[in-house]
Amino acid sequence: MTSRLKPGCTVGILGGGQLGRMLAVAASRLGLKTHVFDPASNAIAGEVASSVTAASFDNESALTEFAQTIDVLTYEFENIPVQALDLLESHCQIYPGRNALSVSQDRLLEKQFMERLGLRMAPFANVESDSELAQAVSRIGPPSLLKTRRFGYDGKGQVRLTGDDQAVAAWDSVERTPCVLEGMVDFDCEISVIGARCASGATACFDPGENVHRDGILHTTTIPACVRDSVLDRAKDISIHILNALDYVGVLGVEMFVDGDDILINEIAPRVHNSGHWTQNGCAIDQFEQHIRAICGWPLGDGARHSDVVMTNLIGDEVLDADVLYGNGTDSLHIYGKADVRPGRKMGHVNRVVRSAD
Amino acid sequence: MTSRLKPGCTVGILGGGQLGRMLAVAASRLGLKTHVFDPASNAIAGEVASSVTAASFDNESALTEFAQTIDVLTYEFENIPVQALDLLESHCQIYPGRNALSVSQDRLLEKQFMERLGLRMAPFANVESDSELAQAVSRIGPPSLLKTRRFGYDGKGQVRLTGDDQAVAAWDSVERTPCVLEGMVDFDCEISVIGARCASGATACFDPGENVHRDGILHTTTIPACVRDSVLDRAKDISIHILNALDYVGVLGVEMFVDGDDILINEIAPRVHNSGHWTQNGCAIDQFEQHIRAICGWPLGDGARHSDVVMTNLIGDEVLDADVLYGNGTDSLHIYGKADVRPGRKMGHVNRVVRSAD
Repeated sequence: MTSRLKPGCTVGILGGGQLGRMLAVAASRLGLKTHVFDPASNAIAGEVASSVTAASFDNESALTEFAQTIDVLTYEFENIPVQALDLLESHCQIYPGRNALSVSQDRLLEKQFMERLGLRMAPFANVESDSELAQAVSRIGPPSLLKTRRFGYDGKGQVRLTGDDQAVAAWDSVERTPCVLEGMVDFDCEISVIGARCASGATACFDPGENVHRDGILHTTTIPACVRDSVLDRAKDISIHILNALDYVGVLGVEMFVDGDDILINEIAPRVHNSGHWTQNGCAIDQFEQHIRAICGWPLGDGARHSDVVMTNLIGDEVLDADVLYGNGTDSLHIYGKADVRPGRKMGHVNRVVRSAD
Repeated sequence: MTSRLKPGCTVGILGGGQLGRMLAVAASRLGLKTHVFDPASNAIAGEVASSVTAASFDNESALTEFAQTIDVLTYEFENIPVQALDLLESHCQIYPGRNALSVSQDRLLEKQFMERLGLRMAPFANVESDSELAQAVSRIGPPSLLKTRRFGYDGKGQVRLTGDDQAVAAWDSVERTPCVLEGMVDFDCEISVIGARCASGATACFDPGENVHRDGILHTTTIPACVRDSVLDRAKDISIHILNALDYVGVLGVEMFVDGDDILINEIAPRVHNSGHWTQNGCAIDQFEQHIRAICGWPLGDGARHSDVVMTNLIGDEVLDADVLYGNGTDSLHIYGKADVRPGRKMGHVNRVVRSAD
């Protein structure tokens, strides 16, 4: 069992984007200091962190100096170079652990892991050669999604196949990097469960939210999801099963498809998750604080929700008039402070507190 | 009318304690940068600010350099040296303005201002000489409170008189500095209104909270206050009257005594206020964001409350086991990260979300 980190201790965060920024704010609320490590010189998490190191992930001396200032290490994204992790792990505890990270870094390993747990997914096949591609298409067929095994996010690294003849061109378009072909499945809706586990084995889940995407990017998460309670309970149970199987410490996002009473796993993210931003205004302890609590050995919050929320992402220039558009008393605005507004870029989000939860 | 400060602009904050810290976090949530100025080398607001300057308020070059980096200036405490304000005002807009500051820096000026507005208070008298002291005691008599006109907070600079013969010793104990003698009044409870006004003249108040003190320090604020709605409405009206009379920009705390249907003004604070911390978990827009909105020319939130809250201050060593004591899902813990735990020192607070507001 990990000992509790006291206020005044320092949490190291790899990655200085909006997730790192909101983790740093949550840590500060618990009296903890933060040190952000990011290759960019103007990482937005640096604005609210106690310290920031701007250096590349292959800069060994910067990584070593960073590691010597922190009491525990976490990260806001899963594609951290293995060499950096090896070096950091020799200095400090990394939560969530390497096992969760390696499983979630590779779509094939992740799906094989889910299979071993007996969880259902859309049909899938590994694609590393022309013959595997042909076999996959013949078995799963279009409509399907060809996804790179690594480094995909927000719809990037994905090609949709609607006809047999598109497979080779699709694979060429992702430079014939290892992929999985995923069958398209019918479903009523996508939900996600934000679960947490601490080193002692205690777990807690927030209520599942219902996700709507637009152009491959999360658009809204609505709490409560319009799904039967028995299904929501089972979704939480599945998340706890995954948390325990990974001997996980921290917050884990699990995206699922719901079709009637069936639940299929879409993917997991070993970190705080965009679909959990609603907790900032719906819960006394939000997903960011829950993650910090877990990795610092503090007791977890129970995930209780006091209000219903609709979270809407502000993408690209949707942020520009947010100050005027979202000024009424039911909207809580979160702007990430990114210097450049770009199409498809997550610039902020709004949590509309719709009504009291009971 | 002030133009809106865009995300990326910088808010300067004089004072780097817990109020400055929570103002900096609120500003960051709107995509704004912050620059904190504080004499201490380890000001806790510096941990979450984009920049921090540790320098004395009489360091003119440090003040000038600071002023050149910011787009608007605010403060977390009212006792800022006048010379520093004169210098800063030549570089940038200060909100709330100098008028509000000078009124609230001196108890006598504040009471005279309230009198001019026709607002009721406990009886009071100015004390600057032995004869004024004798007259004051004979008119107001014990039980009464002798309070220094300047620099008092959290019960400091106050002496309670219970007998006629204590007056001279009491005044000696505060080094015969200018004081007011205040009569003790009977009241049912103390409430406070956190109101806000922006440069365009728009105003909004949060629902009044009911305050309980312990050893002269705020112990709890409970929302809703156990006071008739008509009285609460009038308390808000009084606050708006004060905001308008001061041509105020920002958040103002007004403490009031309620006795039946009567409202007496206790004191005002030209800043975010401890009795408004409950808004962090009861409202979509809290008092800190409301203040930042007002001083940056953004539309104000309407003060709507989505949940009932009991705020409890953590004083001195009450913070030590807060991580374990306040880990359930209805408690939101806020620890300020102060390095030294001292008796009577505000170390954090807990907002218990008691139930939904409707």
